[in-house]
Amino acid sequence: MKRRVTLKHIAKELDVSVSTVSKALKNSEEISRETKEKIQAFAKLYNYRPNNIALSLKNKKTKNIGVIIPDIVHHFFTTVFRGIEHYAGERGYNVMICVSDESFEKEVLNMELLANGSIDGIIMSLSAETQERNDFNHLQEIMDQGIPMVLFDRVSDEVACDKVILNDIEIAFEAVETMINSGKRKIALVTTESYFNVSSDRAQGYEKALISNDLQLEKNLVLTLPYESEDEIPIWEFFESNEIDAVLCVNEIFAIKCMDVVQRQGKKVPEDISFIGFTNGILSRYSTPKLSTVAQHGERMGETAAKLLIDRIENDLEGNYKTEVISATLIHRDSTIN
Amino acid sequence: MKRRVTLKHIAKELDVSVSTVSKALKNSEEISRETKEKIQAFAKLYNYRPNNIALSLKNKKTKNIGVIIPDIVHHFFTTVFRGIEHYAGERGYNVMICVSDESFEKEVLNMELLANGSIDGIIMSLSAETQERNDFNHLQEIMDQGIPMVLFDRVSDEVACDKVILNDIEIAFEAVETMINSGKRKIALVTTESYFNVSSDRAQGYEKALISNDLQLEKNLVLTLPYESEDEIPIWEFFESNEIDAVLCVNEIFAIKCMDVVQRQGKKVPEDISFIGFTNGILSRYSTPKLSTVAQHGERMGETAAKLLIDRIENDLEGNYKTEVISATLIHRDSTIN
Repeated sequence: MKRRVTLKHIAKELDVSVSTVSKALKNSEEISRETKEKIQAFAKLYNYRPNNIALSLKNKKTKNIGVIIPDIVHHFFTTVFRGIEHYAGERGYNVMICVSDESFEKEVLNMELLANGSIDGIIMSLSAETQERNDFNHLQEIMDQGIPMVLFDRVSDEVACDKVILNDIEIAFEAVETMINSGKRKIALVTTESYFNVSSDRAQGYEKALISNDLQLEKNLVLTLPYESEDEIPIWEFFESNEIDAVLCVNEIFAIKCMDVVQRQGKKVPEDISFIGFTNGILSRYSTPKLSTVAQHGERMGETAAKLLIDRIENDLEGNYKTEVISATLIHRDSTIN
Repeated sequence: MKRRVTLKHIAKELDVSVSTVSKALKNSEEISRETKEKIQAFAKLYNYRPNNIALSLKNKKTKNIGVIIPDIVHHFFTTVFRGIEHYAGERGYNVMICVSDESFEKEVLNMELLANGSIDGIIMSLSAETQERNDFNHLQEIMDQGIPMVLFDRVSDEVACDKVILNDIEIAFEAVETMINSGKRKIALVTTESYFNVSSDRAQGYEKALISNDLQLEKNLVLTLPYESEDEIPIWEFFESNEIDAVLCVNEIFAIKCMDVVQRQGKKVPEDISFIGFTNGILSRYSTPKLSTVAQHGERMGETAAKLLIDRIENDLEGNYKTEVISATLIHRDSTIN
């Protein structure tokens, strides 16, 4: 039997990216005519069939679910996975995961790998690069083949499918308002690039809370950090050069790093400066002081996503997509004034 | 097309466990004759073929690797996975993971799922229950079908395959000796059940270090904790009722929990009591005080495992199994006296 030719083989053979191949095969305007002709000819020659096995999937259930997460060394995503696994197990489904490593290309490859006939549906959270590019063709393709999909946490309005999200705007609003009510006035936001839908929602909640309490939005009180970085200089300088008495951080690790820096600068937490983070991970429970944080209820999010997916698979539902909103909880520990 | 009957279907239909079905089909002595006949008849009726697709796999490479880890919410396993993924990616392989959730039955199901024709080889770490049962038939079966396997960290002498392990005995010896050299004499071990090969190796290193320094082994200085538990009472009582001036913990989370308890009991770390943990995770870097710990170099372990597996896949190697030993490093932070 001849080996099935994949997007990746074609990309490698012609020395172009996987997404170029994918777009060329769909005759996208973004790709030059010359490149398209070359790729299409090659695909024809080698009898490329887009996920051909998947096309026959609809009537042949595998009782397997595929999950794609952006990062495996990340408490939130692993707890969501746990929720998916527990719920799916109860309904007799096995689960396998692929990790996109925040890369668009890997996400495309993961989907191709999973959609090779061994799964009935996919649950995923978008990679950073996918959110940055705003390119969701690969998701649409999978759904066009009749494989249902549920997006969680990092989602996009441009993809029509079931979704599970957190009430990020509301809970960020509540977190900031709590700090204002305890007497804080100079409130900073430590966040990631705004192409993450969750970061932009949390920023929106932060801004709304300031405005509704007649506080001024100050651009220099927003610190944008790279998603993964060991460099603490920007943090050090941010807290040295600004007068800040409270901080909302869009994740747990930013909060822990910032608390560590300000305490070395001689400030007291929470008296001089309060902190609230997102992700109620183990770090929050054992930091000094223990971190007040937003519990995102990852397991519940995972269970909800798995329920949406399995219901759709088993009832062959089409359209009528739902977005379930998980209500986050603010947990007060020792990094805020009660 | 009729759906393929799996071990799980048979188990469910006949209301027995997956491992009973697996053993019955291999005519195991452990299963009663009556049960075996029933299961075998059922399997025949429904044309059960053990991983039938896998049998034809040998000449048809998929360029996919399957990974089975016991737990996804665990820093060490996720860093090993990262290492596997990075190395495999460089050699053009995709990786998918299944999680056994420390369950023997899930591990068997994971293997069946992965061996359905979509992977060229498996990298895994044994579940707690598999180590407790000491039952490795499912691993042997996969290898008998020509699917190569590499075990890492939680391994067994009873399985003949490539392995990657840590020098657990030596590094535990070194950790304890370091504390003895700093003047400590009443050294405790906080560990998990001894059916984990890694825990038993670390206990062996601990004992050796005491003996070689003419210190007495005291049974009451060894605390065995359940693998996952929020209950701190046993920890509280252990440190209240014993005179202890140093502690080796077999993982990071035990160390963090114990440090938290003893500090609430009014003891000073490291002056009154020193701590060394295993797993150089993010918790260790942000605990108070920062935890001295054994870096297991999970990424290197993962890369090594992936190299062993891919070399075996690509060169169709048989036999001549290797065990690669990764040398751990002791990292001194603030929970030990330097």
